[in-house]
Amino acid sequence: MQTEIISIGDEILIGQVVNTNAAWMSQELNKAGFEVIRITTVSDKKNDIISSLNDAQKRANVILLTGGLGPTKDDITKETLCEYFNTELVFNEKAFKQVENIFYARGFKITEINRQQAELPKSCTPIANPNGTASGMLFDKNGKIFISMPGVPFEMKTMMTESIIPKLKKQFHTPAIIHKTILTQGKGESFLSEIISDWENKLPENIKLAYLPQPGIVRLRLSARGEKYKPLNKQLELEIKKLHNIIPKLIFGYDNDNLETIVGGLLKKNNKTLSTAESCTGGYISHLITSISGSSDYYSGSIISYSNEIKENILGVSKQSIIEHGAVSKEVVTQMAVGVKNKINTDYSIAVSGIAGPLGGSEEKPVGTIWIAIATPEKVVAKKFLFGEHRGRNIRKTALMALDMLRKELLAEKE
Amino acid sequence: MQTEIISIGDEILIGQVVNTNAAWMSQELNKAGFEVIRITTVSDKKNDIISSLNDAQKRANVILLTGGLGPTKDDITKETLCEYFNTELVFNEKAFKQVENIFYARGFKITEINRQQAELPKSCTPIANPNGTASGMLFDKNGKIFISMPGVPFEMKTMMTESIIPKLKKQFHTPAIIHKTILTQGKGESFLSEIISDWENKLPENIKLAYLPQPGIVRLRLSARGEKYKPLNKQLELEIKKLHNIIPKLIFGYDNDNLETIVGGLLKKNNKTLSTAESCTGGYISHLITSISGSSDYYSGSIISYSNEIKENILGVSKQSIIEHGAVSKEVVTQMAVGVKNKINTDYSIAVSGIAGPLGGSEEKPVGTIWIAIATPEKVVAKKFLFGEHRGRNIRKTALMALDMLRKELLAEKE
Repeated sequence: MQTEIISIGDEILIGQVVNTNAAWMSQELNKAGFEVIRITTVSDKKNDIISSLNDAQKRANVILLTGGLGPTKDDITKETLCEYFNTELVFNEKAFKQVENIFYARGFKITEINRQQAELPKSCTPIANPNGTASGMLFDKNGKIFISMPGVPFEMKTMMTESIIPKLKKQFHTPAIIHKTILTQGKGESFLSEIISDWENKLPENIKLAYLPQPGIVRLRLSARGEKYKPLNKQLELEIKKLHNIIPKLIFGYDNDNLETIVGGLLKKNNKTLSTAESCTGGYISHLITSISGSSDYYSGSIISYSNEIKENILGVSKQSIIEHGAVSKEVVTQMAVGVKNKINTDYSIAVSGIAGPLGGSEEKPVGTIWIAIATPEKVVAKKFLFGEHRGRNIRKTALMALDMLRKELLAEKE
Repeated sequence: MQTEIISIGDEILIGQVVNTNAAWMSQELNKAGFEVIRITTVSDKKNDIISSLNDAQKRANVILLTGGLGPTKDDITKETLCEYFNTELVFNEKAFKQVENIFYARGFKITEINRQQAELPKSCTPIANPNGTASGMLFDKNGKIFISMPGVPFEMKTMMTESIIPKLKKQFHTPAIIHKTILTQGKGESFLSEIISDWENKLPENIKLAYLPQPGIVRLRLSARGEKYKPLNKQLELEIKKLHNIIPKLIFGYDNDNLETIVGGLLKKNNKTLSTAESCTGGYISHLITSISGSSDYYSGSIISYSNEIKENILGVSKQSIIEHGAVSKEVVTQMAVGVKNKINTDYSIAVSGIAGPLGGSEEKPVGTIWIAIATPEKVVAKKFLFGEHRGRNIRKTALMALDMLRKELLAEKE
């Protein structure tokens, strides 16, 4: 069912507020089988709202509006809807009771301005707002549904979940839609698309693929559409299985997974501990790991050896190796990994040393040159990478690559 | 100058990606005197893109598009623009050189798919993308400007800042608008607004104030609008001076300043060095400091002592203190600060220990209890804070508070 969202509010148009409402609504609508075909943000001006309504109803059967229902002068959605649907405001006893209840619960006194919030367009069906004083409104015009909600996120969300989506599902027959995101690490978008192009070309008509790249990660989103949920899910699972057979090593998770959670889960499951020794990432790997609640169960800590003195004095890297090979070398990163693992006494360790940039590059070791080492209970593996020129992205890419290398070692040990 | 933004991408319509690009662009355009009157998000479908272009050019003089310029099959913006502007794709030597350079720098081989990225509509003016392989495109149609950019945020942002906004300002006459952001640390939004309410109420009509709170920081944005730049700037500076007299200690910087840059600048200027010992922040302070290029001049490194063993064995915190007072205590955080300063041999150090949550709280020390210590060449100062319940926000607030405490010590030493 074709659906549009109209977000009303100057605060979005000047960039002061990010339109997270529309993103949340889109997700919920899609899950319920309503296809959002357009999101429009307009100002708090009558003509803009009316023109966006006019355009939307030409394309969609369901139009959801948020914003402009507050008690102050710049909130003009209600009067605008009266004009658009050729109706008038009337006092609504039930809506007023709701306003009264909320004020009573908060210990506030009702003012004239709040009383006005209980005036609603005569031709609308009111929609209860359990968390606020602005009622929602549903208009049915020639089988097209228009619903206006407040822009306050937690008010809008409760109304959507409790009233609006159930109402819409009842009124319209919606198809089954399933989205599944496959998370990959290790190859850029264009390389990945070459490797999986055969599989991509053979995807059934009703399954669409989208590439969603982020620094260090490419997410592949599959969207399947069909009549019934169960066979559709089976069909989708089959395609994911095929993909997994092509790139088993590149896939690290699905949907909202992330590497720090996955690695943490593996360590915890195997009852193993981890430490890190970071040079160019400057604590970012440690930050990712400790952003997960409960990480102290498996993570002991880190030595951030930004200076060579720390590499030598605390991690025990040999001065000779630094002089001969440089701090960004296989020799040094390997000694860092072994050093921190022994010093902090953990089962595994990660060590990184590189040139994050933009300064410090040379012809032999340009900016973006990174060495990563993983020490396991049995061995040390070290690998060299050449990332880009952007400091922040190099730090992020290095951290994700290091976590993914550790993930592979943890999985290999298990086998 | 009336401006519209068209965001292209199914990932926004299904709610997988929040449209932060549009918010950022709106902010920058507003600052430059361009009024964003509508933001439209459409799918990666040719007809949707064309109909949104048709509608937008009826209302606006400048239309900015993002998304759909990647190398894969679902990216159809370029072909769609060819159709809309009645032109054809031609191979662009300069754009290809740019693709080559990026691939060369990363040590990758160019594939056929990448070569296609250098094909651009014949009638467009290409816009360089220093951070990626998809070129931007500018079309001028009867004095209306259409600009298409990639949707990758850091590519788009660089293009906007370096090429597009300067180009647009040159082409259109815009009023003088000056935005100045005052950065404060230490008080929440509502406390701050009470302290400065007198000043706020007396602001001239043409200067508007907006509160932009972030975890640990409140930014105050002043937007001044007038005919000529110079007198407007003078008027604005005067108001900022008045504000500074009211809250001199809360203001740490302006506009795009951040604490890690300011602290780094002070250390560098005074020729002093810094180390950190982090428990609950898990490397985040170190990450902020090392996110600044050149930080190795003053930053030596960190001991992330997530476990008590590291506090004892590497930082030299007394076991007795941990048993008596707990790891989150004045005694322990002070010993951590002294320990890391001596161990890594720096002039200053930061140490933090706290309960980031959501687990680990107690009646005596609830989640959000944080101790921060700063060691200077002369002394150690330690302070206790009670932040909130959200782990990520507690980590960020702690890091910013610690950096601001160090900033104040660095300024005090100078006097």
